[in-house]
Amino acid sequence: MGIRELIEKKRDGRELSGDEIDYIIQGYVGGQIPDYQMSALLMAIFFRGMSEKETEEMTLSMAHSGEMLDLSAVKGCKADKHSTGGVGDKTTLVLAPMLAACGLTVAKMSGRGLGHTGGTIDKLESIPGFSTRLSMEQFTRQAGEIGLALTGQTENLVPADKKIYNLRDVTGTVEQMSLIASSIMSKKLASGADVILLDVKTGSGAFMKEESEAIELARQMTALGLAAGKETVAIVTDMDQPLGHAVGNALEVREAIAALHGEGPKDLMELCYVFGTYLLEVSGRVTDHEEARGMMENSIKSGAALQKFAQWVEAQGGDPAVAENTDLLPRASIVMDLITESSGFIEHIDCESIGRACERLGGGRSRKEDAIDLSVGVVLHKKVGDRLENGDVLATMHGNDLDSMKEAKDILFGACHLSRTPVEPGKLIRWVVSKNGIEKY
Amino acid sequence: MGIRELIEKKRDGRELSGDEIDYIIQGYVGGQIPDYQMSALLMAIFFRGMSEKETEEMTLSMAHSGEMLDLSAVKGCKADKHSTGGVGDKTTLVLAPMLAACGLTVAKMSGRGLGHTGGTIDKLESIPGFSTRLSMEQFTRQAGEIGLALTGQTENLVPADKKIYNLRDVTGTVEQMSLIASSIMSKKLASGADVILLDVKTGSGAFMKEESEAIELARQMTALGLAAGKETVAIVTDMDQPLGHAVGNALEVREAIAALHGEGPKDLMELCYVFGTYLLEVSGRVTDHEEARGMMENSIKSGAALQKFAQWVEAQGGDPAVAENTDLLPRASIVMDLITESSGFIEHIDCESIGRACERLGGGRSRKEDAIDLSVGVVLHKKVGDRLENGDVLATMHGNDLDSMKEAKDILFGACHLSRTPVEPGKLIRWVVSKNGIEKY
Repeated sequence: MGIRELIEKKRDGRELSGDEIDYIIQGYVGGQIPDYQMSALLMAIFFRGMSEKETEEMTLSMAHSGEMLDLSAVKGCKADKHSTGGVGDKTTLVLAPMLAACGLTVAKMSGRGLGHTGGTIDKLESIPGFSTRLSMEQFTRQAGEIGLALTGQTENLVPADKKIYNLRDVTGTVEQMSLIASSIMSKKLASGADVILLDVKTGSGAFMKEESEAIELARQMTALGLAAGKETVAIVTDMDQPLGHAVGNALEVREAIAALHGEGPKDLMELCYVFGTYLLEVSGRVTDHEEARGMMENSIKSGAALQKFAQWVEAQGGDPAVAENTDLLPRASIVMDLITESSGFIEHIDCESIGRACERLGGGRSRKEDAIDLSVGVVLHKKVGDRLENGDVLATMHGNDLDSMKEAKDILFGACHLSRTPVEPGKLIRWVVSKNGIEKY
Repeated sequence: MGIRELIEKKRDGRELSGDEIDYIIQGYVGGQIPDYQMSALLMAIFFRGMSEKETEEMTLSMAHSGEMLDLSAVKGCKADKHSTGGVGDKTTLVLAPMLAACGLTVAKMSGRGLGHTGGTIDKLESIPGFSTRLSMEQFTRQAGEIGLALTGQTENLVPADKKIYNLRDVTGTVEQMSLIASSIMSKKLASGADVILLDVKTGSGAFMKEESEAIELARQMTALGLAAGKETVAIVTDMDQPLGHAVGNALEVREAIAALHGEGPKDLMELCYVFGTYLLEVSGRVTDHEEARGMMENSIKSGAALQKFAQWVEAQGGDPAVAENTDLLPRASIVMDLITESSGFIEHIDCESIGRACERLGGGRSRKEDAIDLSVGVVLHKKVGDRLENGDVLATMHGNDLDSMKEAKDILFGACHLSRTPVEPGKLIRWVVSKNGIEKY
């Protein structure tokens, strides 16, 4: 069958075989199948969906389209954690050194931010000297030596996903569950980790606004990971408001370092403890749930996680002094408190707008090639359910340009909705999807 | 809105405005919109369809994407007749001189055959010397002088349709009713005729196998023609067996000339009489139905149509003697009778297979750039409902290569299905779609 017949097959709702999918993916990466046929196929997939088998075959074919990272030289179990993207999500910065301090190796590739969501690589780059471009040799050596290494994605990793994602982005075929799942999981499978924790965000600041969609994505990705022989757990978590208080690259690193000092916001710490507990369990390092949780908490109390963080920063060329002195991070020239003129309980925060305000300040990119200002951002002092009195500081804005700060201010005030009566915030951790099925947390 | 947003709009089932459709069509022809976005949009249209308004806007935008033929210099009403494509369909060769003999000018662009269907341009080229590439000046002058001119499509006519059709052909987006309707009608509107008769074929040899689909296509095309201010009639006709007996370019010209001599097969003559009658009526030339039919029949009886045919051939550089001596047409070197070894009534002829057999003999093209052998083809001596005795000649094959004839023979025998009991053939003319609505004939 030629590619036209395969497009028609999918268009008419018939299932593509593994060989057919591999022919399509490798043919597209190799340039034998042109963009215009691939985009027609992607639109047919948008309407027809993909079966579990098709999604699995596509994921594997994409994963094998380039280099497959080999972490076998690194002793022990290697863990990876992935978030579908949110606002103020600095979990990796805190969780990775905690896990390494508990003896679970974290060797991970991360991405940059796009749109209203931030990216771990950008955040790390706000640490002076920190290099996010490790050679594969450096990456595996560091993971072996200190149990922790993090780098940006190499060109050779899953080229099929890069090419297909770029095409989806301009042809209206991004919002398709199986394509999203296979895009994420192909990268996870090619990155060589043994255990994978997926943080699937849901709510106003997430790509999956509906919880039911987030559960379905978690289910599909977990199935893909398990089918490929990886211990995989997906946790559906709240993104109806930013995680912690800080939104913006250097500001988030500052909050992450505070967290490692034991002064982190409650929601951020809870995610780190829960994710770490699950990872310690599925990696087989600890069998008892309470013991795993205790180890995670102790990594903070003992200062071991903070020490691991400093070691990590130093290993990747950064100044380890930042762990004790966050004033070494880039700072914005204008710091402005936003004073509220009304009273009430915060009922709802339009989380995507908070991300957009930060983007407006120069802290995010609308296109992949945009440069960003690492120093700017917002610190939200109030969260959903908090009482706000006339005259309270709602948030502090960090910027370098008054015009953009004025615009960001309007966005921020517009994003927070008050209620006269007390409000119960949504549950932080909603669902756990694992080989045991879908369970309410 | 950019093209990505427009793709998403159509994908999500929202109606595109006239301006948006024009932006897409002209942007695609102009090269500002790349193939990969157009193909994604076409696939979205495949699933979502187009409203009547969208189809109309697309048709008009395509019609205006290049040169619009101006036939105003030619006096009187100009008629066009279009068939959606069938097997053995030589109607134009007979009908056009009949109409011209009755005083209705036929100025028409025709296409070449593709796949199992033939094309009028190929058929005419089997007449020695006949030129199917008239300049626009020559075309309009000849139409004015003898009331009849036929040429191949120029490069400048509806470039949008050419570009979009080529893309649909390789992206699985051909079989969409509104796209088919707008493709055909954009060419009709750009060709400048005042009255249009559409012959919509249905059955095993047509693109529309189902009669309900053919009616819907007839309805959409008629609406498009009428909305553009053209008198338009569509007639749904049978293509469950070849029209007449001959299938193959020179063989069909031979049969057409016999028809002009008054010796045409019944079904071919009936189509010509009916189509001509409708055209004379909608052109306003004759108001009485019976009178129009009488004029058409008389054009054959009197020899006027045959004379017009010879005049036409001469005007386009061909040898007019062919009208009296069909041996001047190309002849195949091998002529083979196919003798049947069974008895019964012909119940069903797989009409597309007859076309494929002719293609196999070298008389059709599977790709646009293929060369074809004008001399080859098949003459079917029996039609649906006819009684066949063991030893009867089912068909005569004309070919130049024994290997391909052997293959064609198997296809032909496989295409004819017999019944022990008498069979009533399907109705030749099924439905008439006009400004009066859809009427059973």
